[in-house]
Amino acid sequence: MLLTTLDIIGTFAFALSGGMRAVENRMDPFGVVFLSFVAAVSGGIVRDVLIGAVPPAALQSSLYVGIAVVAGALCFFASGRIIRLARPVAVFDAIGLGLFCVVGARKALDAGLSPLMASLLGMLTAVGGGIAADVLTARPPMVLQREIYALAALGGAALLTLGDMVGVPDAVIAPLGAILATSLRLVAMSYDWHLPRAGANE
Amino acid sequence: MLLTTLDIIGTFAFALSGGMRAVENRMDPFGVVFLSFVAAVSGGIVRDVLIGAVPPAALQSSLYVGIAVVAGALCFFASGRIIRLARPVAVFDAIGLGLFCVVGARKALDAGLSPLMASLLGMLTAVGGGIAADVLTARPPMVLQREIYALAALGGAALLTLGDMVGVPDAVIAPLGAILATSLRLVAMSYDWHLPRAGANE
Amino acid sequence: MLLTTLDIIGTFAFALSGGMRAVENRMDPFGVVFLSFVAAVSGGIVRDVLIGAVPPAALQSSLYVGIAVVAGALCFFASGRIIRLARPVAVFDAIGLGLFCVVGARKALDAGLSPLMASLLGMLTAVGGGIAADVLTARPPMVLQREIYALAALGGAALLTLGDMVGVPDAVIAPLGAILATSLRLVAMSYDWHLPRAGANE
Repeated sequence: MLLTTLDIIGTFAFALSGGMRAVENRMDPFGVVFLSFVAAVSGGIVRDVLIGAVPPAALQSSLYVGIAVVAGALCFFASGRIIRLARPVAVFDAIGLGLFCVVGARKALDAGLSPLMASLLGMLTAVGGGIAADVLTARPPMVLQREIYALAALGGAALLTLGDMVGVPDAVIAPLGAILATSLRLVAMSYDWHLPRAGANE
Repeated sequence: MLLTTLDIIGTFAFALSGGMRAVENRMDPFGVVFLSFVAAVSGGIVRDVLIGAVPPAALQSSLYVGIAVVAGALCFFASGRIIRLARPVAVFDAIGLGLFCVVGARKALDAGLSPLMASLLGMLTAVGGGIAADVLTARPPMVLQREIYALAALGGAALLTLGDMVGVPDAVIAPLGAILATSLRLVAMSYDWHLPRAGANE
Repeated sequence: MLLTTLDIIGTFAFALSGGMRAVENRMDPFGVVFLSFVAAVSGGIVRDVLIGAVPPAALQSSLYVGIAVVAGALCFFASGRIIRLARPVAVFDAIGLGLFCVVGARKALDAGLSPLMASLLGMLTAVGGGIAADVLTARPPMVLQREIYALAALGGAALLTLGDMVGVPDAVIAPLGAILATSLRLVAMSYDWHLPRAGANE
């Protein structure tokens, strides 16, 4: 129940950020909902395709389409208000990040991948949607730019796989992993932590 | 027979529009044929990967490569003439749109997806190639911009899945779905119907 | 042993070129390693997904991640030096191209694809990583532009499938295919051979 609620909140936040990118590109209502959906589910879909779990989970429930339609409609008709709510949306987004990286890593472990690869697939689950939305608006992915975003997701996913290796039950380590990723992201935002950009070393 | 002919015509039209995008980007002959192929088959390939039907149908017949080579060569050597033939090419493209959305939805239903998801995959089958070609030329996908294009494909795919739900035989509902999508597209072009763009509401 | 060495060299060269693209886009260290990884393994991953060999080989060994980390770190901290070493890097890249196109075509034949399709998948294995890295930096793929690159890979892959058709053992035809592709690429670079661009004919 809590998990489902968090999943919906995280998906909704991801869908909002995808929709806002579409609005910035002045797409039509279809484009906006399409990008909301892409941002919300692409990471999970790519993960499922890579581990052979097809059709992907995101295509087996109507829930995610419903979330994308609501988020996309909000973006299309009320983008100004969403921009003013940027801060809470970013917090929800961080929650989604934490949840998705842990779920993704768990699924990849279950599919037999190594802890290292499961950590990477957990990270990809969390950041894949944002990358896809950026590609579809023809700009270099934000998450590869300066933000401590993929790093936070990798941390959460790695904690889960480490816990799994030493035998900590999922009920303990999964929440810890999600909290780690979400906190890292929130702290990085609060203190404006950034990674250095390439080119500053030459 | 009719179906195969329509499939070839639709594929050819999609391949022409992909090739023309490559020409606009001044790609080499390989790039032009590559984009022709991508525009013609990506939608179906993504659909097949998502429903687990691999290797995808488009990679199991040489027909589509042949079509892409012919269309790509035409684009490379006679782009000026193709631009003058924009109108008939757009009509063939609309025929391809109608056919692909119906075929895609049918395949998705057969793979056990829900009617809603099958409609979306039908739409994706029809518009995926154009999106892929746009991504490969680093521009935001046209079909997400203003055109009534994805909407027409969604309408055709939805009609098929609705017919399937209430038990109308495919021989009846599939042609109707294709005709609906193609007509919607042609009427929208004729009367210059557009969806509003995001940003006009603020 | 030789094969593994060549595979590592080719992967490393591909990873370097992906990392350098990230540096040009001033990405953060994560972005640089991410693009190194993408450039090194995307071609093979797409091939494996298309033939249903999931999880893809590149996700079943930590080797490729390690190579991407080393190559990415080099690009991030010493991009100036890598630019000065452009010539040897390009030679290694050509070796990777030859190796990857042959391995890709072999895998596709084993998966039951026709010689024509196996040649194309061989080419895609070799050029897919570069295309993915270009898409992630929002520019039209270099390999579709003017360079004799995809053509060289196609030649090597086609030689392998032809040899397979007439019964030449892999131990003979695979090295020949790889050498053909690598040589074609190197000769094209040396003599500055290019394909014409579209648009020059109008």
